[in-house]
Amino acid sequence: MHADNLVVVVTLASLLFYFWTSMRVATARARNKIVAPAVTGHPEFERAYRVQMNTLEWLPLYLPSLWLFTYYWSATIAAALGLLWILGRILYALDYAKDPTRRARGFGVQALPTAVLLFGSLGKAVALLTMHGI
Amino acid sequence: MHADNLVVVVTLASLLFYFWTSMRVATARARNKIVAPAVTGHPEFERAYRVQMNTLEWLPLYLPSLWLFTYYWSATIAAALGLLWILGRILYALDYAKDPTRRARGFGVQALPTAVLLFGSLGKAVALLTMHGI
Amino acid sequence: MHADNLVVVVTLASLLFYFWTSMRVATARARNKIVAPAVTGHPEFERAYRVQMNTLEWLPLYLPSLWLFTYYWSATIAAALGLLWILGRILYALDYAKDPTRRARGFGVQALPTAVLLFGSLGKAVALLTMHGI
Repeated sequence: MHADNLVVVVTLASLLFYFWTSMRVATARARNKIVAPAVTGHPEFERAYRVQMNTLEWLPLYLPSLWLFTYYWSATIAAALGLLWILGRILYALDYAKDPTRRARGFGVQALPTAVLLFGSLGKAVALLTMHGI
Repeated sequence: MHADNLVVVVTLASLLFYFWTSMRVATARARNKIVAPAVTGHPEFERAYRVQMNTLEWLPLYLPSLWLFTYYWSATIAAALGLLWILGRILYALDYAKDPTRRARGFGVQALPTAVLLFGSLGKAVALLTMHGI
Repeated sequence: MHADNLVVVVTLASLLFYFWTSMRVATARARNKIVAPAVTGHPEFERAYRVQMNTLEWLPLYLPSLWLFTYYWSATIAAALGLLWILGRILYALDYAKDPTRRARGFGVQALPTAVLLFGSLGKAVALLTMHGI
């Protein structure tokens, strides 16, 4: 129960990081005079936008898996994997802004903990279904 | 427990509002003959699409915070803040459709309750971690 | 409780299907030499991207409704409706890739279970609020 507070903090830290990626879009929009509703027109803006979108795209894979892993396995390990996800996402955002072709490194660092959280939860749920039935 | 039903209703009302923003995209697509998979080609369509996307972008900040706030603090206050979020989102959608430069008002009205829900939950989780440890 | 494992498996299967739609975007990006951060430039890529985005757009409608329906009504029925959602999404993805004008069929098949899950949950929550008050 106490450890769940740790997963809450990691969850909200992940969301604050995600919010930071959307702030960078707003900043790049203003600096490069991209007038809404346009989402193209300058490489810096388009990079910032893709970083935000890719982070958004991964939140449904990451967050439910984080909490299912907490439920099935361990809040402490889930929290540690969540921190690794944030680290990978920071790398991805900074690398992508410099040079989109370098985005694989941070992408891999955030994909790894997501896979462990997702397949760890799936394995446990399937094992329990197999043992106890529906 | 009863009050949680209230937060469920506010959650689903928020999602129905979000669905309405996507219906407006479909309508604008048909009216302006934007052929899928294109998501550009007419200002009315592009505005409707950005309204939907921005609402989608904020759902991961808003919905988990709404429920964490319900868990840590109060379902009734969470529900009231959720209603304010919907109100801000309606303003944002209507203002944006008329003139994208006027979108700040509704944006602010929905950002305020999101911030209260998120930082209220974060503060409580950090306080509990500090008191009781991991 | 056992049946909840079934809904977990359906949830994670839905997310793995969603991940597959994003893999198809990556493949179409490489094959058609669409250099990041661009998200336009070839019909095959743009179709794959819209399929992923539309799936992402529906996840907030589908997943919370799936779990609220599990809570209020039945895990087994929720899981069956979730499988129908995945089936509709597969149809939508394959049809859209061939011809975007044919996307209505799969779209309808995934919209139906989403509507049952959402309005089923909303009806129960409103009924409970009416009976017991806030």
